[in-house]
Amino acid sequence: MQENFGKWMGGIPDTFYAVSRLEKYAHHGTAKFYSKGSYIGFSGEGRSELFYVLYGKVQLNYIFDDGRERMVYFGGKHSVFNHLYHYAYKSTFEGCLLALENSKVCHFSEEQIEHIFQLDRDIILDLLKNSNAKASYFMKQAVEMDYFNSAVRVVRLLHDLCISMGIPVDSHIEVSIKLTLKNISEITGAHYVTVSKVFTLLKRQDILVKKTGKMIIYNLEKLKELTQRTQIFKNL
Amino acid sequence: MQENFGKWMGGIPDTFYAVSRLEKYAHHGTAKFYSKGSYIGFSGEGRSELFYVLYGKVQLNYIFDDGRERMVYFGGKHSVFNHLYHYAYKSTFEGCLLALENSKVCHFSEEQIEHIFQLDRDIILDLLKNSNAKASYFMKQAVEMDYFNSAVRVVRLLHDLCISMGIPVDSHIEVSIKLTLKNISEITGAHYVTVSKVFTLLKRQDILVKKTGKMIIYNLEKLKELTQRTQIFKNL
Repeated sequence: MQENFGKWMGGIPDTFYAVSRLEKYAHHGTAKFYSKGSYIGFSGEGRSELFYVLYGKVQLNYIFDDGRERMVYFGGKHSVFNHLYHYAYKSTFEGCLLALENSKVCHFSEEQIEHIFQLDRDIILDLLKNSNAKASYFMKQAVEMDYFNSAVRVVRLLHDLCISMGIPVDSHIEVSIKLTLKNISEITGAHYVTVSKVFTLLKRQDILVKKTGKMIIYNLEKLKELTQRTQIFKNL
Repeated sequence: MQENFGKWMGGIPDTFYAVSRLEKYAHHGTAKFYSKGSYIGFSGEGRSELFYVLYGKVQLNYIFDDGRERMVYFGGKHSVFNHLYHYAYKSTFEGCLLALENSKVCHFSEEQIEHIFQLDRDIILDLLKNSNAKASYFMKQAVEMDYFNSAVRVVRLLHDLCISMGIPVDSHIEVSIKLTLKNISEITGAHYVTVSKVFTLLKRQDILVKKTGKMIIYNLEKLKELTQRTQIFKNL
């Protein structure tokens, strides 16, 4: 079971816990193909559906009252976007699912999922693990959001990535990850300009350099020290 | 099933979804009494336990590296604090459970819970609903946190409470709730002083008055209008 968590990249809201076991029950739901950039579905009051990614990459966006959208999390193969059992939950938000790549997504209704639970008890346990992982991640996000300023949150994400995915190469550490400044801005809630300023500062101090598809960390100790600061643009 | 959600008070991270069905399996776990103010347990890497409140009131605090604590959520009778299946989840946070009132809490290990799942399949479905409700609430919190400033978040909480719990009395609306300024500060992440300033402003504008154990809303329309502002201390 533990290998499902292996894909987890510290700090990135991606997939969380892949439910590979559900694939063999896909014929109980309705699988559809979505081309890159298209909308897969909407969630909100009164809607109750579970989306399961067979292949591709899918993103859940929160929709604000004024129509603006913001990324909540995304997921690849075998990720679950569970909008079941929210019928009476007053705090459900309006959201939409978007195909980030050409994707095949299976739609399950509440009845279909409960039928699958009857056939295979372990599916529901996997969904519980998936849900727990998300709850835990977003509790941490919400609590840290008002405790650390946005520049520190960016540094904390980079440090998490280094700890969870870093590989020592010569005298430095490399993290292979495709992550744009915009991605980092969406994950941390920091402004794009702040993210950019953090990278400039880290580079100037020979702590970390971002290249296409990877980050190189030259001074992990200093990076860790910065995660405990209340702000990072002064007294470095 | 839906009545379990009835206890939900919009915007307050309290209980989320009561799992009353679990009480009859309490003898499979270990029930203990905790006097007000005492620690019930700790969570974090390597720990795996489910806490179930038989009576009383319990709060989960997040523990920051520097030892400071911050409320994540709390729960009354039949609430669940689920720290199972986090063993390989790298983003698990250090937390502690605290008795807010004299409480009786049942501790279940992973093995005990899985044994109960064998006896009663519906328990796991209830835990999934509980977990989904939390994940959904904290997604919303995390996403709104960097979109709305802290004063607006306070106004949004008050408006949510009014919509979900308000009762029309004469020409105004009353919300019966015991909620201190400190509680509101912890829930919204707004500074205590900001919370206080928001109430002063709402009172001065004849929008809302906070009394002990209740809030009286005189102008719901104006309150709603404020929830859509980017800031509320100017141009009112």
